[in-house]
Amino acid sequence: MITALAGGVGAARFLRGLVAVVPPERTTAIVNTGDDLVLHGLYICPDLDTVTYTLAGVIDPATGWGRAEESWRVMDQLGRLGGRTWFRLGDMDLATHLYRTQRLSEGVGLSVVASELAAAWELDVRMLPMSDDPVRTVLRVPGQGEVSFQDYFVRQHHDVTVESVSFAGVEDAAPAPGVLDAVAAADAIIICPSNPIVSIGPIVAVPGMRQALESRRERVVAISPIIAGAAVKGPADRLMRELGHDASVVGVARLYGALAGTLVIDRADEDLAGAVEAQGIRVVITETLMSTPAVAADLARAALASVLG
Amino acid sequence: MITALAGGVGAARFLRGLVAVVPPERTTAIVNTGDDLVLHGLYICPDLDTVTYTLAGVIDPATGWGRAEESWRVMDQLGRLGGRTWFRLGDMDLATHLYRTQRLSEGVGLSVVASELAAAWELDVRMLPMSDDPVRTVLRVPGQGEVSFQDYFVRQHHDVTVESVSFAGVEDAAPAPGVLDAVAAADAIIICPSNPIVSIGPIVAVPGMRQALESRRERVVAISPIIAGAAVKGPADRLMRELGHDASVVGVARLYGALAGTLVIDRADEDLAGAVEAQGIRVVITETLMSTPAVAADLARAALASVLG
Repeated sequence: MITALAGGVGAARFLRGLVAVVPPERTTAIVNTGDDLVLHGLYICPDLDTVTYTLAGVIDPATGWGRAEESWRVMDQLGRLGGRTWFRLGDMDLATHLYRTQRLSEGVGLSVVASELAAAWELDVRMLPMSDDPVRTVLRVPGQGEVSFQDYFVRQHHDVTVESVSFAGVEDAAPAPGVLDAVAAADAIIICPSNPIVSIGPIVAVPGMRQALESRRERVVAISPIIAGAAVKGPADRLMRELGHDASVVGVARLYGALAGTLVIDRADEDLAGAVEAQGIRVVITETLMSTPAVAADLARAALASVLG
Repeated sequence: MITALAGGVGAARFLRGLVAVVPPERTTAIVNTGDDLVLHGLYICPDLDTVTYTLAGVIDPATGWGRAEESWRVMDQLGRLGGRTWFRLGDMDLATHLYRTQRLSEGVGLSVVASELAAAWELDVRMLPMSDDPVRTVLRVPGQGEVSFQDYFVRQHHDVTVESVSFAGVEDAAPAPGVLDAVAAADAIIICPSNPIVSIGPIVAVPGMRQALESRRERVVAISPIIAGAAVKGPADRLMRELGHDASVVGVARLYGALAGTLVIDRADEDLAGAVEAQGIRVVITETLMSTPAVAADLARAALASVLG
């Protein structure tokens, strides 16, 4: 059994590689829900959907989120009515949010809905939200107070300074059914190449998760989302710097050191391998920029080998 | 000032005739919300939307509801995901529900949202829901207990026996802001040719409305939705029979007699004029089947003349 902690685009690409090298039915993805939002009354789970669409082969390859061959009839009309259109929801994508919101209103948990949607796409990977309870990633921005993740990320294009990050509601959240077992029973636990602060951070903050990971540290391998001091995509490097971390594989090693016995870094960071190992974490050096599915599969193979031998 | 009590398709067609003969900015429509439903998390107001779309000239002329030149991308995809698709929501129509639900979630009242949507369509008619509070028309069906209006009307094609009709929540509902004033200040109050039980019934049941109408009885003119013992469309005749009323203009006169000083009936019912007048209600006989906008305009003119002279 393989368990992966996953954020959005980077995690989705990695997981597509992973299921090319291990049987999908032996794979569990524990996905961040701190980015979730309610908009137009609809319950939207960007990370769960990005992972699901990617594994289903229906992701928009240009953006890495949303559906391929999408249309925008609803959004166009909503704009004409004067509605809020900064968070773009395509027609086919909207069907996912309608389905999810209806099921939640019937009293079903988010983890059940996630598995129903995975089944609708005939995915064999087990798809679990980190929690069935609402957790909201909140960023403190000077002059704005606290802003929600999607406001920061989409509306403001993560182009503002962040003073602090917190996960509202996380103290009262429980891991979704199956999450702790998936960590406890896994032969390998992979922390996908996602933003350590706002993608992996919320998952680890769910009560019980940090201890569960620490107790399996020798089976946990993290893949650095930072290559040569920069995030492949998104604000991971800037966020790390602003919150007082090194925006480097060494900074990643410090963040993950208590959880992961191994860190996979890119060849571009080979000269930092010693500094990473000085944090008490083993280093694996390979190509981590997933420019093709084949690279992602090789990366998955290298990560698994570091734990499974 | 002209005020009209309105249900769905029949009322919408009548109102399109009305605004051809009186200035729309002097016209207020008080619209039934007992048919409203929440589905997929979206707040849907079928009657408000039918009236708004019709006056905006964007109604589907074939069905009398929904948008012309509509597409079904979201519904098609929702069906593939295993979602609920019995209540058909087109892509452009969905934008209305997204807009409304978002605004309601921001704490704005339904009457404000209705006027915002009317403004988006550049309508001069004032569009008011009967109440900003939730009222739900509920039908008791043998063997099924209580079913919601849209379950009865759409999912079961109103093809079941109804034992009783009630309006859940109506005791605690208040007329929407402007509703009582629109009745009190009107030169003429028109009860549109809508289902007396499930379209006009909920409006009259809102606390304060019956008294407000009764006190203006001489200014109130109703248009019979029953022609020659049958509803033009929908279950009005069957419902009236099953609930113990005559499915005829005489039955309509009995239902409306305390509220309306005048009843407009079709030429096909000329022989029942005496029986209607025996209920203490004046009769106007004209063509009421609104086969063209011109007929609807003539009907509006006749209804107004009966009250305004």
